[in-house]
Amino acid sequence: MRRRVYRELFASAREDGKLTVTNRIIVALILVSVTLAIVGTERDFVRGNPGLFRWAEFTFGLAFLVEYAARFWAAAEQPGPGGPWSKRFVWARSVFALIDLAVVIAALFPFVVTGAPVLRLLRLLRLAALLRFGRFSVALRELQGAVVERRYDLFVTGALAMVLLLGGATALHWAEGSVQPDAFGSIPRSMWWSIITLTTVGYGDVSPITPLGKVLAAMVALGGIGLVAMPTGIIAAAFSDAMQRVREREASGGNDS
Amino acid sequence: MRRRVYRELFASAREDGKLTVTNRIIVALILVSVTLAIVGTERDFVRGNPGLFRWAEFTFGLAFLVEYAARFWAAAEQPGPGGPWSKRFVWARSVFALIDLAVVIAALFPFVVTGAPVLRLLRLLRLAALLRFGRFSVALRELQGAVVERRYDLFVTGALAMVLLLGGATALHWAEGSVQPDAFGSIPRSMWWSIITLTTVGYGDVSPITPLGKVLAAMVALGGIGLVAMPTGIIAAAFSDAMQRVREREASGGNDS
Amino acid sequence: MRRRVYRELFASAREDGKLTVTNRIIVALILVSVTLAIVGTERDFVRGNPGLFRWAEFTFGLAFLVEYAARFWAAAEQPGPGGPWSKRFVWARSVFALIDLAVVIAALFPFVVTGAPVLRLLRLLRLAALLRFGRFSVALRELQGAVVERRYDLFVTGALAMVLLLGGATALHWAEGSVQPDAFGSIPRSMWWSIITLTTVGYGDVSPITPLGKVLAAMVALGGIGLVAMPTGIIAAAFSDAMQRVREREASGGNDS
Amino acid sequence: MRRRVYRELFASAREDGKLTVTNRIIVALILVSVTLAIVGTERDFVRGNPGLFRWAEFTFGLAFLVEYAARFWAAAEQPGPGGPWSKRFVWARSVFALIDLAVVIAALFPFVVTGAPVLRLLRLLRLAALLRFGRFSVALRELQGAVVERRYDLFVTGALAMVLLLGGATALHWAEGSVQPDAFGSIPRSMWWSIITLTTVGYGDVSPITPLGKVLAAMVALGGIGLVAMPTGIIAAAFSDAMQRVREREASGGNDS
Repeated sequence: MRRRVYRELFASAREDGKLTVTNRIIVALILVSVTLAIVGTERDFVRGNPGLFRWAEFTFGLAFLVEYAARFWAAAEQPGPGGPWSKRFVWARSVFALIDLAVVIAALFPFVVTGAPVLRLLRLLRLAALLRFGRFSVALRELQGAVVERRYDLFVTGALAMVLLLGGATALHWAEGSVQPDAFGSIPRSMWWSIITLTTVGYGDVSPITPLGKVLAAMVALGGIGLVAMPTGIIAAAFSDAMQRVREREASGGNDS
Repeated sequence: MRRRVYRELFASAREDGKLTVTNRIIVALILVSVTLAIVGTERDFVRGNPGLFRWAEFTFGLAFLVEYAARFWAAAEQPGPGGPWSKRFVWARSVFALIDLAVVIAALFPFVVTGAPVLRLLRLLRLAALLRFGRFSVALRELQGAVVERRYDLFVTGALAMVLLLGGATALHWAEGSVQPDAFGSIPRSMWWSIITLTTVGYGDVSPITPLGKVLAAMVALGGIGLVAMPTGIIAAAFSDAMQRVREREASGGNDS
Repeated sequence: MRRRVYRELFASAREDGKLTVTNRIIVALILVSVTLAIVGTERDFVRGNPGLFRWAEFTFGLAFLVEYAARFWAAAEQPGPGGPWSKRFVWARSVFALIDLAVVIAALFPFVVTGAPVLRLLRLLRLAALLRFGRFSVALRELQGAVVERRYDLFVTGALAMVLLLGGATALHWAEGSVQPDAFGSIPRSMWWSIITLTTVGYGDVSPITPLGKVLAAMVALGGIGLVAMPTGIIAAAFSDAMQRVREREASGGNDS
Repeated sequence: MRRRVYRELFASAREDGKLTVTNRIIVALILVSVTLAIVGTERDFVRGNPGLFRWAEFTFGLAFLVEYAARFWAAAEQPGPGGPWSKRFVWARSVFALIDLAVVIAALFPFVVTGAPVLRLLRLLRLAALLRFGRFSVALRELQGAVVERRYDLFVTGALAMVLLLGGATALHWAEGSVQPDAFGSIPRSMWWSIITLTTVGYGDVSPITPLGKVLAAMVALGGIGLVAMPTGIIAAAFSDAMQRVREREASGGNDS
């Protein structure tokens, strides 16, 4: 019995990597619960039917509590040495188990305690349920490996991007600091401009107005664009490699994780 | 006779992949009709010569109706088993035949029924005529195959982008929700900010104003840019591969589709 | 004598591809003349010393006239059959010779005719002198070849981008046309929004304000970004290939153009 | 003794490329000092505890002075011919030694001289301490080599980008110069628009308002985007190659710089 529950709940217990029926139901529950949590932040919807939202929050919280308890109980079936309780506590200390627990608490706590600011944060924490999908994904593990492999590249490009961001912020602080003290009055303030410019977002809430400031900003924009995107580019390349490896492994048949 | 019409109308009936004279005329008709439909939405032009636009709409609708009827009749010549009528209905249920029908209805219906809102939508539907070019294109079929091949990559990067967009929206909702309720008062509202920021469009109609909101937005911008563009990057790479295959196939001579 | 002038002026007459002393002087003249033409549009500078600008314009015009005459005379030395005059007229009809002529006329005409609007256009035409650098460049010829080779890719991606731009403009015209008639009142007007959005420039002068418009704009932004950049991406890849070929040719020694 | 100091201070003196304990302390000092210099530009922080900032500035200045003196003294141990003093002066004229000196002066000079504008520039100069990290980096030297190798590509793409920027600025100056004289009244002013547009930053402080200006701006945006990013793309590719080489060299074991 416990073995069957274990097989149903733990995706890595299956050889073919497919999701079990129970896991499919949990995925659906998470998606609906997250959608409700998102929609629930819009007051106009909640005001219309507050009962529905309270009821749904409680039901999903209860469902996730049952799932957490079942996982805790079935964790004793995990391979490896040690008694059932030591295995259970090993599982309870894993990242995904902690996320599960946080989601359960975030969903059920509002019915025990009241107090607006804590509640608001807890409500948003329910979105963390999305992270639970990580459990089902081989791709994320591959991605993690590929990123670790290129950590040196990431560090060097990250440092270069940081120097560029700081240099741009310093230049504009020097040129426009006295004209627009609110926007460029200090380097930390100028950083907002330099980040929004070098990522090419360019809201336009802050931009140089003096000729010198415009010349410096143009030089920063021409020189720095793309270089700031390099760390992300490296992660994207690492991801592309990881995907390629997953595809090749699947093509060669075995799934020996 | 019917065979000749078939050869003239159906591009795939020709071995060398070139467009026939009739097809060239249809392409020209589509381009002129779409241009007219676009210009026709600008009132200043229509007011100047309303007769021209009504007359042109009717003429193009008639021409496309004739083309549709001819294709329906000639579809009986399509290769494969079955009687002429079954072949015709197989053709009439194909995607391109349905687009053709929609365009004909959109062009001629306004002369039968009146009623502003329906008419406006129908008028815009005439732009769907552009999609009819898909019929002439080998490249689109190759692109479709390349995208299907990488559907797993697309799914994972799409999910990652979705989590980033939601995470950014949640962070800004938390930081700025009470200061700018119109823009960040709920997660669905914050999504507008996070999509416009992470695609680097950055209109500037919505941007954080508190220091905490700016710090969070800067982190979201630095971390998420490029990752949101990954699904599109995968499609672009798939397209590039598909183009390469088309070129190689053409170079090797045969066109065995 | 004429042969020496020919060798000095025509860069392609030299085997090693280096610039001659005369060509270096001409390059310097062009750069100074273009800089003056740019600065000369700023009234504050011109008002300060109008004599300098008029005198400089005349001098550069004269220098370019002398150069044009010398090239015309020396063109008789070009290899190939035909008499000196036929060779000269062949040269005079080449693209670069026509640009040279246009620059000379643009620089000297203002001293003959007066009339503000024509003059203003002529003054700007002097910037065309920059295009004259194309003459000295092997890279541009390689780039042209690489682009021609991928013209089919460019056409398909360009058509796809066009459909995306039109589709986005139509969607926003439908959603926001009645709310913001100035910005989305017709498809041509909406095109300004869709081009500025899909290139991720995002000035923010025009953006959707209704929830429906925002949802559609978010979908257009997420779906279309990167795809609009594909034609440019193809040109960039073509350029990269062309550069690689130039480098390899130089490495292998010969320069057989 | 001097040999030991030399080994502790000069990173290139160690065979395994790791940082010595002294170097780790210096790195930490630089990071804290730069952070203080950044935070010190925000008046609200300084006003709170002016004593702390003055005291910290002095301490860091003193520490860097001691380090500079120690390096100057130990430089006599550098390999190669020549007496200890000639080696010291060779070192003192190197780029990194000059940056070190500038940082020391920038940190200590404010306590000798007073005068607001000079002081402000000197305070910002302390950020140059970040450049000192260059000393510890093998990657930067590799990057420099890779960029030099592709200097021709950089020159051609840079020139192409410059022509595009100028062409766009000229077109908009022609179309909008009389309508928006502040933004497009001269080509240098239009350059601000063309740089902010072609880098896709798009603040929105300056954008065309006439139909002709919008059509030209749309053409410039569609045609020029990506091409302006090409020089940065080449540097990014050069960086990627340099990183690859560093990794391969490390994998093959030796570090023979």
